[in-house]
Amino acid sequence: MTKSSPVKLTSLAQSLPASVPFVGPEAQERARGAPFAARLGANESAFGPSPRAMAAMTAVTQDAWMYGDPEYHALRTALADHHGIDATNIVAGEGIDGLLGYLVRLLVEPGDAVVTSEGAYPTFNYHVAGFGGSLHRVPYAGNHEDTAALVAKAAEVGAKLIYLANPDNPMGSWHDAETVTCMLDALPDGTLLCLDEAYADLAPPEAVPPLDTDDVRVIRLRTFSKAHGLAGMRVGYAIGEAGLIRAFDKVRNHFGLGRVAQAGAVAALADTDWLAEVQARVAQSRDAIAAIARQNGLIPLPSATNFVAVDCGRDGDFARRVLAALIAQDIFVRMPGVAPLDRCIRISCGTAADMDALRTALPRALSEAAGS
Amino acid sequence: MTKSSPVKLTSLAQSLPASVPFVGPEAQERARGAPFAARLGANESAFGPSPRAMAAMTAVTQDAWMYGDPEYHALRTALADHHGIDATNIVAGEGIDGLLGYLVRLLVEPGDAVVTSEGAYPTFNYHVAGFGGSLHRVPYAGNHEDTAALVAKAAEVGAKLIYLANPDNPMGSWHDAETVTCMLDALPDGTLLCLDEAYADLAPPEAVPPLDTDDVRVIRLRTFSKAHGLAGMRVGYAIGEAGLIRAFDKVRNHFGLGRVAQAGAVAALADTDWLAEVQARVAQSRDAIAAIARQNGLIPLPSATNFVAVDCGRDGDFARRVLAALIAQDIFVRMPGVAPLDRCIRISCGTAADMDALRTALPRALSEAAGS
Repeated sequence: MTKSSPVKLTSLAQSLPASVPFVGPEAQERARGAPFAARLGANESAFGPSPRAMAAMTAVTQDAWMYGDPEYHALRTALADHHGIDATNIVAGEGIDGLLGYLVRLLVEPGDAVVTSEGAYPTFNYHVAGFGGSLHRVPYAGNHEDTAALVAKAAEVGAKLIYLANPDNPMGSWHDAETVTCMLDALPDGTLLCLDEAYADLAPPEAVPPLDTDDVRVIRLRTFSKAHGLAGMRVGYAIGEAGLIRAFDKVRNHFGLGRVAQAGAVAALADTDWLAEVQARVAQSRDAIAAIARQNGLIPLPSATNFVAVDCGRDGDFARRVLAALIAQDIFVRMPGVAPLDRCIRISCGTAADMDALRTALPRALSEAAGS
Repeated sequence: MTKSSPVKLTSLAQSLPASVPFVGPEAQERARGAPFAARLGANESAFGPSPRAMAAMTAVTQDAWMYGDPEYHALRTALADHHGIDATNIVAGEGIDGLLGYLVRLLVEPGDAVVTSEGAYPTFNYHVAGFGGSLHRVPYAGNHEDTAALVAKAAEVGAKLIYLANPDNPMGSWHDAETVTCMLDALPDGTLLCLDEAYADLAPPEAVPPLDTDDVRVIRLRTFSKAHGLAGMRVGYAIGEAGLIRAFDKVRNHFGLGRVAQAGAVAALADTDWLAEVQARVAQSRDAIAAIARQNGLIPLPSATNFVAVDCGRDGDFARRVLAALIAQDIFVRMPGVAPLDRCIRISCGTAADMDALRTALPRALSEAAGS
């Protein structure tokens, strides 16, 4: 058989590394040859999905032979009712990750400037690189993303897009609504704020600006992967001005959200009791993580999310040793990737058993990290 | 509040229409204000998912709080075992639709030439347009995609990519393996054949060329949405040379396939009894559709898929009237979009009840179409 030469990727695709923004815990388990005892690294909701969501997904399993509605009508209508906005202001998709990809694709041509914070969500950066954007990073101001610096950099480089997570990942910090509103007012004309509110359901109300679906300056991203405990179904959505939202129909995978995922999300949204229960358990677990950290001489940072960034008090190498020693004791955790944030490790909220495992493992991890 | 001007989409995104490659039956039901009685338009598997897949998905619902493994390791390993190939030759993703998008993105820069058949799968065309490719179409040769014409056009325009569905959608026809192999041997150097084998599980074995994962000239797409009855979970995969497969890691939504979807696909693949059962029921239903068509003076085309293209014997306007009259009688069906294929309507296989509904509705539909 004749073999020809391999097909040539686009010049942009050739320039990209084959990469995974996050190595999954399953891959780590395969490499370690041992399962984790506590899964506290991906800010999943260890308290599980809503029982009503589980029942809805189980009930619809027999319908899994049918494609999901490509308009996601039931889900978008439920979300519109929930938020008191119109369904034309909502697009759903394959997690915030998927929606970030579509957003960057719609706005960023090769060479276009984009601004984010040094150490913020890597998957956003992955998409910007993937569409050839030119990414500019500004440092955090302490443990907070620096809204003034983000805006100033956007003005300087003529950015199409600024990324801000509020509450922030990986630090857990947050800005109040007024700070975000002031940031919007200061945005250069033609710059869109990509406001990642993945943790909004776990934040104090004052951290979440009121929705204004006429506002063309911002698109807001939400997810069922965090408080709603449906990370394994991959349902995210974006809220924005109708014209921008409609543009997603130009590029999205219209059948990307399956029928079971849509049904689970609709049921989860309706189960406000479960959300309140999760919020209470998350608050309790944040306190538990903070107490464990303090008992070990570490500094837990205030958090508006379902995780706590714990300042290990020394440099990144030390924190990386702490992280490795926790992983060696079967605790899956992650940490910020860059200095100076990497003096912290990031611990997701979990069950009482998870907290017990952490309580047991942390002293030894610190001692090993200090001793090596 | 200051309102700025809307952010500008890329020039490519501005040029694209907001479109849906297929209007879902749910949208039609909302517009009609009435549900369909028989769902025979999207080539779904009305026989349902494997009972083992349903059980696996139900069992894993409680784990839906965890992200799916972004490497899809269990699924890819199971597929590799099933096909007798290496897992490095397999990438999974959000249906064939999602994988087509990634493939086009990897290969097609604005202006690059791509070749398909006039009337073939619209979602492929959607992706080519979405990445700025220049799409060239060749006519079908009768009811078959014209492999020689596809290759000749690719040579003429210097195409990066040729799309061929074998078995074909929307006509249900197929080429034998030797024809596909000859097509590969005739491919211009640097042209990749995108071989959509969504219906391979329902085709005669002689329509499916042997897998050769060293072959850099072809990438083959498979799905759990058809014979495996998991359209609502959106799991597709591609088989190809390891270098090309690895390139998907540059652009894919790594967490795009959820945990429940992965578990369902793994269980479906293992349930070979159910696949055999579905294959038998599909064959039976193809015969039933053919018999109903003939009883009404229409010509059923031979099919290697889970649908039958029925030649209504007149022009596209007539077939469109037949289609509309079926839909008015609560039968969801679709038809090819362009002449001369649009003399046909396309009817998916279904249950005995679906066939009864079709048997009742078709005579009246034909009479209405002839009379109006």
